[in-house]
Parts: sequence; C-alpha cells; structure tokens
Amino acid sequence: MGGRVGFIGLGIMGAPMARHLLAAGFPLTVHSRSPGPVDALVEAGAGRASSPAELALTSDVVVTMLPDTPDVEHVMLGDDGVIAGAAAGSLVIDMSTIDPGPTRAIAAQLAARDVDMLDAPVSGGERGAIDGTLSIMVGGADEAFARATPVLQAMGKNIVHVGPSGAGQITKACNQLVVAATIETVAEALVLAERSGVDAAKVREALLGGLAGSKILEVHGQRMLDRAFEPGFRARLHRKDARIVLDAARAAGSPIPAFEVVAAQLDRLVDDADRGDLDHSALFTLLDGA
Amino acid sequence: MGGRVGFIGLGIMGAPMARHLLAAGFPLTVHSRSPGPVDALVEAGAGRASSPAELALTSDVVVTMLPDTPDVEHVMLGDDGVIAGAAAGSLVIDMSTIDPGPTRAIAAQLAARDVDMLDAPVSGGERGAIDGTLSIMVGGADEAFARATPVLQAMGKNIVHVGPSGAGQITKACNQLVVAATIETVAEALVLAERSGVDAAKVREALLGGLAGSKILEVHGQRMLDRAFEPGFRARLHRKDARIVLDAARAAGSPIPAFEVVAAQLDRLVDDADRGDLDHSALFTLLDGA
Repeated sequence: MGGRVGFIGLGIMGAPMARHLLAAGFPLTVHSRSPGPVDALVEAGAGRASSPAELALTSDVVVTMLPDTPDVEHVMLGDDGVIAGAAAGSLVIDMSTIDPGPTRAIAAQLAARDVDMLDAPVSGGERGAIDGTLSIMVGGADEAFARATPVLQAMGKNIVHVGPSGAGQITKACNQLVVAATIETVAEALVLAERSGVDAAKVREALLGGLAGSKILEVHGQRMLDRAFEPGFRARLHRKDARIVLDAARAAGSPIPAFEVVAAQLDRLVDDADRGDLDHSALFTLLDGA
Repeated sequence: MGGRVGFIGLGIMGAPMARHLLAAGFPLTVHSRSPGPVDALVEAGAGRASSPAELALTSDVVVTMLPDTPDVEHVMLGDDGVIAGAAAGSLVIDMSTIDPGPTRAIAAQLAARDVDMLDAPVSGGERGAIDGTLSIMVGGADEAFARATPVLQAMGKNIVHVGPSGAGQITKACNQLVVAATIETVAEALVLAERSGVDAAKVREALLGGLAGSKILEVHGQRMLDRAFEPGFRARLHRKDARIVLDAARAAGSPIPAFEVVAAQLDRLVDDADRGDLDHSALFTLLDGA
C-alpha cells in the first residue's frame, strides 16, 4: 500500500486532524462541503478533490470525519461516494461518531468491493484534535488496523483496537453513556449539597480523593461550581450521541435504566431549555433552576 | 478538655476504629451491644461501661459508630443515653452514616445541655477502618472541630470540615449518591459492550484514561468483569444510604431524577433478587441477567 491519504470532512475536528497528517508527511488530498477549510488546507500543501469518489481514486487510505450517520452513509455509498472511486485493496477509516449498526452495514458493502473499513471514533474534543492527542477507539480487522496505525498515530495518542467492525463505535457509545451519566450524577450531588446549605466546593473536594472520584467530578464539577458552561462539548452533540447509545442498547437488548433518564435530561436541555450550544455540563442548570 | 474518650458501637467498623484510639494513647472506655467485641477491647486495655450514660459520665469525648438513625437517636437521647451522663462542655462525635435532619435535631438537644456534637461520617470501608485511613466528612462548629481533630486523626487521613451541623451527613449522602450512580452507569456501559459482542475489558481499558475515567470504573469495573461480588460494601448498606439520599433530597427540594432510578435498582437487588449481602457492584447482575 502507498501512503496517499484522502481526508473528507474539514469541520472543527477534521481540519486540525488533516493538518497533522500533512505535518507527518503524508501526501494529502481533501474534500469538504465548505470551501473555506478546503482552501486553507490546499494553501498548506494538500490537493483538492471535487467529490468523495474523485478523492478515493487517488488515495490509498480515505479518512472521514463527519457529523452523523446519514452523512457517512451518503459520503461512502452515495453517487460520487467513496465506494465509486476506491480501488480494491484500499482502506477507509471512519473517525465520525455514528451508529454501530449502520457502521457494520457500510463496512460490509465496502468489503464486497474488496475495500477494508475501520470505525475509529475519537474522544478528546477540539483540544485533542489540535494537539494531536485524541484517544481513538478502533473496530475492524487486525490487518487493516496494522495498516492504519501510522495514519492514526499522526492524529492521536491512546489508540486501542477494541475488536471487529463496529466495536469502535460501541466503545464510543459506552464512553458517551458513562460521561453523560456521570455529569448528571455529579450535578445531582452538587445541587443537593447547595440546596442543603452546604458548600458544594467543599463537597467536591471531600469526594474527589475517594470512591466517588472521577475526571468528571474534577473537570465538570468545577464548571458547575463556576457556572462556566461555554463549550467544551456542546450539549446538542452529546444528545446526538445519546441517541446512538439508545439505538445500540435497543439493538443489543441491553437494559440502560439510569441512562434513559439522562438521555431524557439531554432532550430537555436541548429542546425545552434551548441550551444545546452550552457545554454538556449545563445538565446542572436543569436541576439548579428547578 | 481532658483526653478521656468513650466509644459506642464496636461493629465491623467501630472495633478497629476504637483500637486506633487505644494505640494513639487515649484513655478509652467502650460500650456495645455484643459482649464479644467489648471483651476484646477490654483485654487490649480499654475500660467497660454498662450503658451510654455511664460511658459519657467518665468521658470528655464520646464517639459513636452505629448502624442507622434510630440507633443513634436511642443511644444519644434514650433512657441511659449519652445525654443522661454527658457533662456540660463535653463533646460528642457521631461517625455513623445517618439522616442529616435527625442529626441536626440530636445536636440541638445536646447543645441545650451545653454538649457539642459533630457529625463525622466516614468513607473507606472496613479496610480504611483497619488501616486508620478513613476519609472523614465533618459537620459542626469550628471550635468543636478543633477539639475533635486529634481524635479523628487517630482514625482517618483525609479529614474535611465541610460546614455546620449536618454538613458531614449531607456530604456523605452526596458521596453515596455519586458512588451508587457511577456503579450503575459503569454496569450499564459494560453490559452494553458485552451484549454487543465487544470485549468489555478492552472497553474499560479504553475508557479509563479519558473523561469517562473514575475510581469506580477502575475498581468496580474490574469486579464486574471478574464477576467478583463478595463484599466489599454490602448492597443492603448502600440501599440504607440511598434512603438517606432520598430523604435529604426531599427535605431540600432537590431533584435527583437519575439517582431515583439507581435507588430503585438497589431496592430490586436487595428485595427482589435477595443479593443484599453481595458487594454494591452486584448492581451489574440485574442488567447482566436481564
């Protein structure tokens, strides 16, 4: 396999990730809906492709970073999609956070054309994308993972091959389940402290060193104390991910009674309270203002 | 104030805590319902009192470590209770985990006799009690806290004075809220991984370093993977603490929508599944077996 990389989806996450690939010396072609980020990458040395199919024609590895499941389906399988241009033996790495079920279906369609696909969603947010320190959870075949590793290493640090196709998306869903539920839980505890007349900052401090300790209590607990809800990770994106969790749990027949309440709180925050552009730690505001 | 300490309640937690007081050189008198642990402490050098009142008569500081709210009310305020023997100017430290509301009421009754009371519940479990490394969350007046500090330091390490009377119990309630909810959440995520055909051990590993990371994911996540549910902290004790959380939230008018589900899961585990003597991480078994 050659080292020509194509990158589709130059959003807040994708643009800095693509820059890391350029900086690592990969010959890079890019494609995105908005022309601005494409122009910026072309100025930095990347080639431009007018469609996913054209990009795939000249790439050994195609990386996608897109908002949601329908976007990935369209870019991969639509007219002028990756599947129309990708050569047999090429590799696709989807780093979007999407539904595990459709992920496996897309991978199967690509496999029928002898194109390997990995699902490789990330955590670490815009900061991690800019710093090249994303955590990457990978699903797919061993051989494809081995081929992808140099590309992934240019963008992330903690790269775990979790299992077969879809396993990366399942892992990301588990991550988003735990993160949202822990935010809700920490918020419930800190509001209980405040409403009971106890200094919530001291409660956070007392809890941090023990069994109740978590990264969320540390980082988002402090945001709650400071009422500092500028994003960070927008609540509406976490709500999208919560739907992926609900779909995955339904598909697996796996009970998630506490998370169902958390998902409903995210719906309330985005739809009823219209706070979808605040940080996900703004779940606190639903309790604090109640 | 003299340094004579009385200790009431020589259970799994209380007995090793009392031993630390002896080892630290405090003249110690003990009282407990079961004669066995009293005999053992007397053999080690403690004096014996036949009632809480008698114990209080000869103690400058009375420490209590009892199962539940009614036990503390009875020992403090009943016939032959601490209140009947405690001298004006003496200090009571209740280290039990009980309701914040009744705690304040007991403290007020003792204050009317010029007896100070601190609520000082602990976390760290039997291991922490034996090692003298308990975390202690203290509510009460500054001056009482200062007097209590040498006594508390003999039993614990991370000693935080959170606020006025009841603040220690509120903090403990917040702790138990977060711990139980995080256990439930981690269980929901790991069962989702397993039912989706993904190696839950790899999911735990992938999540530990990031935002989803917590002490619970580390310790209880591993218990879940190993199906190692011998206690540890018994589910029936956490169910008792969940009721304290529910009471405290009701009293404060504080919403706890996700924790309500967690409390119901603890009820199911103890009452329906009859697994109250397993570790609280056995919340996992309700999902795993569903």
